[in-house]
Amino acid sequence: MAWACNAARKYAECLLVSHESLLCFVPVGGCKANWRPNNSPKLIDLMDDTVPGIGTYEDFNTIDWVREKSKDRDRHREITNKSKHSTVALLFSISDAFSGWLLMLLIGLMSGALAGGIDIAAHWMTDLKEGVCLNGFWFNHEHCCWASNETTFQERDKCPQWKSWAELMDGVSEGRVNVLNHFMYVSWALLFAFLAVILVRAFAPYACGSGIPEIKTILSGFIIRGYLGKWTLIIKTITLVLAVSSGLSLGKEGPLVHVACCCANILCHFFTKYRRNEAKRREVLSAASAVGVSVAFGAPIGGVLFSLEEVSYYFPLKTLWRSFFAALVAAFTLRYINPFGNSRLVLFYVEFHTPWHLLELIPFVLLGIFGGLWGNTRLGHYPVIEVLVVTLLTALLAFPNEYTRMSSSELISELFNDCGLLDSSKLCDYTGNSGSTSGSVNATAANGLGARLAGPKLYTAMWQLALALAFKMFITVATFGMKVPSGLFIPSMAVGAIAGRLLGVGMEQLAVHNHERDIFRGWCSPGADCITPGLYAMVGAAACLGGVTRMTVSLVVIMFELTGGLEYIVPLMAAAMTSKWVADALSRESIYEAHIRLNGYPFLEAKEEFRHKTLATDVMRPRRSDPPLSVLTQSGMTVEEVERLISDTTYSGFPVVISQLSQRLVGFVLRRDLFISLENARRHQDGVVSVSAVLFTECESPASPGAPPAVKLRSILDLSPFTVTVHTSMEIVVDIFRKLGLRQCLVIQNGRLLGIITKKDILKHMAQMANRDPESILFN
Amino acid sequence: MAWACNAARKYAECLLVSHESLLCFVPVGGCKANWRPNNSPKLIDLMDDTVPGIGTYEDFNTIDWVREKSKDRDRHREITNKSKHSTVALLFSISDAFSGWLLMLLIGLMSGALAGGIDIAAHWMTDLKEGVCLNGFWFNHEHCCWASNETTFQERDKCPQWKSWAELMDGVSEGRVNVLNHFMYVSWALLFAFLAVILVRAFAPYACGSGIPEIKTILSGFIIRGYLGKWTLIIKTITLVLAVSSGLSLGKEGPLVHVACCCANILCHFFTKYRRNEAKRREVLSAASAVGVSVAFGAPIGGVLFSLEEVSYYFPLKTLWRSFFAALVAAFTLRYINPFGNSRLVLFYVEFHTPWHLLELIPFVLLGIFGGLWGNTRLGHYPVIEVLVVTLLTALLAFPNEYTRMSSSELISELFNDCGLLDSSKLCDYTGNSGSTSGSVNATAANGLGARLAGPKLYTAMWQLALALAFKMFITVATFGMKVPSGLFIPSMAVGAIAGRLLGVGMEQLAVHNHERDIFRGWCSPGADCITPGLYAMVGAAACLGGVTRMTVSLVVIMFELTGGLEYIVPLMAAAMTSKWVADALSRESIYEAHIRLNGYPFLEAKEEFRHKTLATDVMRPRRSDPPLSVLTQSGMTVEEVERLISDTTYSGFPVVISQLSQRLVGFVLRRDLFISLENARRHQDGVVSVSAVLFTECESPASPGAPPAVKLRSILDLSPFTVTVHTSMEIVVDIFRKLGLRQCLVIQNGRLLGIITKKDILKHMAQMANRDPESILFN
Repeated sequence: MAWACNAARKYAECLLVSHESLLCFVPVGGCKANWRPNNSPKLIDLMDDTVPGIGTYEDFNTIDWVREKSKDRDRHREITNKSKHSTVALLFSISDAFSGWLLMLLIGLMSGALAGGIDIAAHWMTDLKEGVCLNGFWFNHEHCCWASNETTFQERDKCPQWKSWAELMDGVSEGRVNVLNHFMYVSWALLFAFLAVILVRAFAPYACGSGIPEIKTILSGFIIRGYLGKWTLIIKTITLVLAVSSGLSLGKEGPLVHVACCCANILCHFFTKYRRNEAKRREVLSAASAVGVSVAFGAPIGGVLFSLEEVSYYFPLKTLWRSFFAALVAAFTLRYINPFGNSRLVLFYVEFHTPWHLLELIPFVLLGIFGGLWGNTRLGHYPVIEVLVVTLLTALLAFPNEYTRMSSSELISELFNDCGLLDSSKLCDYTGNSGSTSGSVNATAANGLGARLAGPKLYTAMWQLALALAFKMFITVATFGMKVPSGLFIPSMAVGAIAGRLLGVGMEQLAVHNHERDIFRGWCSPGADCITPGLYAMVGAAACLGGVTRMTVSLVVIMFELTGGLEYIVPLMAAAMTSKWVADALSRESIYEAHIRLNGYPFLEAKEEFRHKTLATDVMRPRRSDPPLSVLTQSGMTVEEVERLISDTTYSGFPVVISQLSQRLVGFVLRRDLFISLENARRHQDGVVSVSAVLFTECESPASPGAPPAVKLRSILDLSPFTVTVHTSMEIVVDIFRKLGLRQCLVIQNGRLLGIITKKDILKHMAQMANRDPESILFN
Repeated sequence: MAWACNAARKYAECLLVSHESLLCFVPVGGCKANWRPNNSPKLIDLMDDTVPGIGTYEDFNTIDWVREKSKDRDRHREITNKSKHSTVALLFSISDAFSGWLLMLLIGLMSGALAGGIDIAAHWMTDLKEGVCLNGFWFNHEHCCWASNETTFQERDKCPQWKSWAELMDGVSEGRVNVLNHFMYVSWALLFAFLAVILVRAFAPYACGSGIPEIKTILSGFIIRGYLGKWTLIIKTITLVLAVSSGLSLGKEGPLVHVACCCANILCHFFTKYRRNEAKRREVLSAASAVGVSVAFGAPIGGVLFSLEEVSYYFPLKTLWRSFFAALVAAFTLRYINPFGNSRLVLFYVEFHTPWHLLELIPFVLLGIFGGLWGNTRLGHYPVIEVLVVTLLTALLAFPNEYTRMSSSELISELFNDCGLLDSSKLCDYTGNSGSTSGSVNATAANGLGARLAGPKLYTAMWQLALALAFKMFITVATFGMKVPSGLFIPSMAVGAIAGRLLGVGMEQLAVHNHERDIFRGWCSPGADCITPGLYAMVGAAACLGGVTRMTVSLVVIMFELTGGLEYIVPLMAAAMTSKWVADALSRESIYEAHIRLNGYPFLEAKEEFRHKTLATDVMRPRRSDPPLSVLTQSGMTVEEVERLISDTTYSGFPVVISQLSQRLVGFVLRRDLFISLENARRHQDGVVSVSAVLFTECESPASPGAPPAVKLRSILDLSPFTVTVHTSMEIVVDIFRKLGLRQCLVIQNGRLLGIITKKDILKHMAQMANRDPESILFN
């Protein structure tokens, strides 16, 4: 086998020699193209780190996936080779192979623990707005009443140890209790919001928002230093608790993805394999985003699919398995911490018992349409709305209505709930349950028909819910885009759940009142609860979430993991599908994509196919009005000339050609590598002056005697740049960029270099074709 | 926007002209490079189908994914453009957009119905081996006894209407009943197996085996005509029922994937979009393989992940969502048919109640190791073992032992089962249950400690299971590779489940007898059933299945969908992980990959990274000893010369260069397209003779007067062939081939064409690097 390669190499060598002598426009004389295997694979030299900084990236730049993956393979090969020679190296090789799993374990543990901590802290601080526990201020309302043994099952929320703020103060008259409580509620909310916004502004501006758009961009290969750093993690964790507790209409689910990614990024620093390779690090971050969703919804499989479908860019199968492992570890860590005291991972786990009827698909599709429309409310168009104003407004308006006063998760939990026989909730006030006889109960009530007839409390609840819906829709739009950590998952779900529950109760009453009609006969026997309003709430929540994020499979799987029954997948799927179609018909981009576009990040969407009929020649630089392409020649340039080229231009790399006349491509060199190498040569290589030659050739051309020593830069030259022809259609170019993760690509025709296409050029072109401003793409 | 493109084009045009005149070695004279937009995107002409056959593939060849995807985009663009002009076209455009969903619906319905039919037929025929129903021969044992009202709940299997064959015959002495039944059992089994093998051999040789390796290969872009045709479908469905009923140790789960893919392929013929595009068809087939697993295990999510992880090659996110839809439709169709009469999708749905203990991970990991070892039993090494011999052997040996006599699915169902209080199974014979007092019951039995103490029947069952394990292991190895439809999923699961149950009962008895020891204290309170042997069986089944197929996430998700509890994912995951590690340590390839390699299919594995340090120049053709690369020149060749080149060589395509001297690349033309075009020109174009010129240029060179008309073939020329440089490392080349689905790639250096790399070259090179025979790669 070895001889075959050697033979092939020898053959290639002679081919090279013959071609050089046959074709070179510049005199290469009797230079023998010396084949040095160490020099040939394009990245082996970068690993030696002779010049520090080569192979790294600047902030707000895109990485070269091909280069990073090559680096990793070289590293792996080196370790494997060494492991054959010594036992220590073998052990190192084994530990290196398992380091990925260890890292996943640590990410799972750390994220799970943090999520548990955030849940507990947010719960306690939310309750703190209303009162305090006498047994110890660190108990939340529920824990406080658990600790006191006097409570019965029905009244677990009421116990003497828990005092509202008004009760703590002496001499407050009865009439003023409510006002005082409201005042304290608003004050606490303002304090929390104020702290959150101040902390974010002072210490970690990257901590605001959900972070998912930026993580998507980072995963696609962009570099934003500090976005996943330790300060962002600390501040985001603290301010997330504050923001959630302040009662603003925001969720912790999106930010949890950011928190998990921060954990992953920080833990990567302890593993050489991941610290020094941007591509490998991104594999870990993909897994971390799965972990984030896993702890947010208690849905490990849904988390993995979310990462695959929504955020990840490069997701090899190995990562799938590891993500799943990390997501499970995180879910079990969270369950062990048990923040809700019910050994469930989420507050709104549900179980339904009644099957659904095929006709119910109509209201479900309606909910899907509502969700699609909601997904097109352009959220966050107001860049600077004072956080305190919104908090004040939220706190003032939310307090009187119990459905807006409770946290969004509790609201969702309540709305998803299927009414049992002993349920004391207002939403479950049916005449059959409470025994209260309202005027509308007719003669058939005796045989149990009235069991599902709405009682007066339910009507009140419906009014309150309708008001809550309007309020939530308005306040969510106002809240999103504020400079605090804020997720959209839970507020969107809350909006959908309210709409769904309203529709569900409406349907139910329709069925009860018309059970003898043809449609309902055979489906609703009198008195049986043939319609589950909780299911409608769940479908509505899924529809709204789907409309905003455009998730599909992951959404359904997350919801499936919440309910645990295959039975209810079809309604969820119908709603998710309708919602996506409606939302896509109105605007193709999800909230995340809109955010990415607004920020001008260089993100090449993998879902949308590029369908225009343009060619590489339409996109490449230089354009007609531009000066000709800046190229380097493989020999014949001096240090000064190269340095002038660097300072005169801002391109991030330069093609190297045989000669200016022939324009025949040799390779590509990155600006940063070139700059660092020349600096280094000036400093450390003896005798290098401005007129020293810069050589990218393998062999030294016979220099004139007395000339200063040449700077040899073949090692930083990428000898295998990607090329396309001028005739290549842009569809294919876009596909190559996406699938291989390129940063740039050279355009040739008949062996002659004509231009260059960068990722930014492509994005600008795509923006232009979509009638958007191409200058909105800001970064490389 | 339009002006920008035009300006760019004009600019490119003048660049082209200037370069031509500057660089061309051949005289192109005053030829103006006329920019014809219609001609420029490389595939637009193929759509017009002026010459039938162009753009199609031969049998046993690999498709060009880039070309197919371009074709589809062109088609889509044309439809979109037309839809702007007329209402009919708009409606057509909408129906075209939704045709994918309709197709998925049909595939789901058809596959679900077929799977239901297969289940019912196999169930009936399996029972037919033992006896017949007097109420009607079409009832199976269970239905027969349901129909008669006399049966009680406990004895649903025993009723007077169901007669064994011996009972039907008069005057059979008591002693001979068993012998006669055994004889009938063997005879039926032999008849079924004989019919199966004859039908496969006579009508559809492609129907044998599970079909998954071939489907993997087809999905990666290979063409095997008839493999997914209607005859294969019909014969596979019938023979699958026969083979399963004959009692051979094979499963229907793998073949169901093949059946679903056949359905998909046949249904594709009704949709132009999918009929005429090999890439789009493969998207549908990917979804169909998800459908197959969905109906086999009642696991839609697991099916989608199986398709993603195990069989698919090109799996865009759109397909993920559609696969999920199709998988759900199929699962619900199957549930509607209700083949098992329990409104479950599978026979072995389970529910466990006891939590597992952390220490139990040790036996679970042991089961994983067993599974990994089992996965490395090289199955099917015997290419021609007579089906009837194996059937005879199976039937003779399987009958006496009740655990081998029952079908594998029933066995698995029984082994997974958690012993309830009323369970009358032998496996649930605990002293606390039956009240039978065996000698070993000690004094503490009174307080319920003995509840889990094994009774005598359980000991008998253990012996029978141990024998069954040995038998199953032996017979499964012998069965696989036979020329009947056969899957490995269920036999492997059965082996694992037996091993697991044996270990589980062992652990349980260990715990009962040593409950006062430190390890078991605090975990097993006396009398409580702290160990679930059914869980061990399930873990063992997962481990063996994982060892054979090397599935990871999909395996765990399938098992999760069977149990429905997140609780038991960790044991499954531990076993699946161990199993995969052990199996991979012994041999890197799964049973499917081994099968693909044995058949010499051109399959480029996406999971395994290519890690050798070779370069494109080591792999490209021509090698040293070969004649130089066969190229065409863009002008200056005659029809005769081109035809001679075609007949003298077997290459599937030829590069086109400017001239033999310069070797500067213009494009690439496929052998088949070239051949068809020349044939067509000879037949239909007036005046074309052997000395006519063949032109690949855009502009006609000034022909000498009186010369015969030239054959212009620019339209079949691919002007944007993929190129790499000689220095490109093979890692990157392999990556490009995988991700873009290339068939060939040209190798250039400094603008000069040096060689070509085809998919076959890469596979041969990979085989060589892995010390295998490179000649084992048979197809292009």
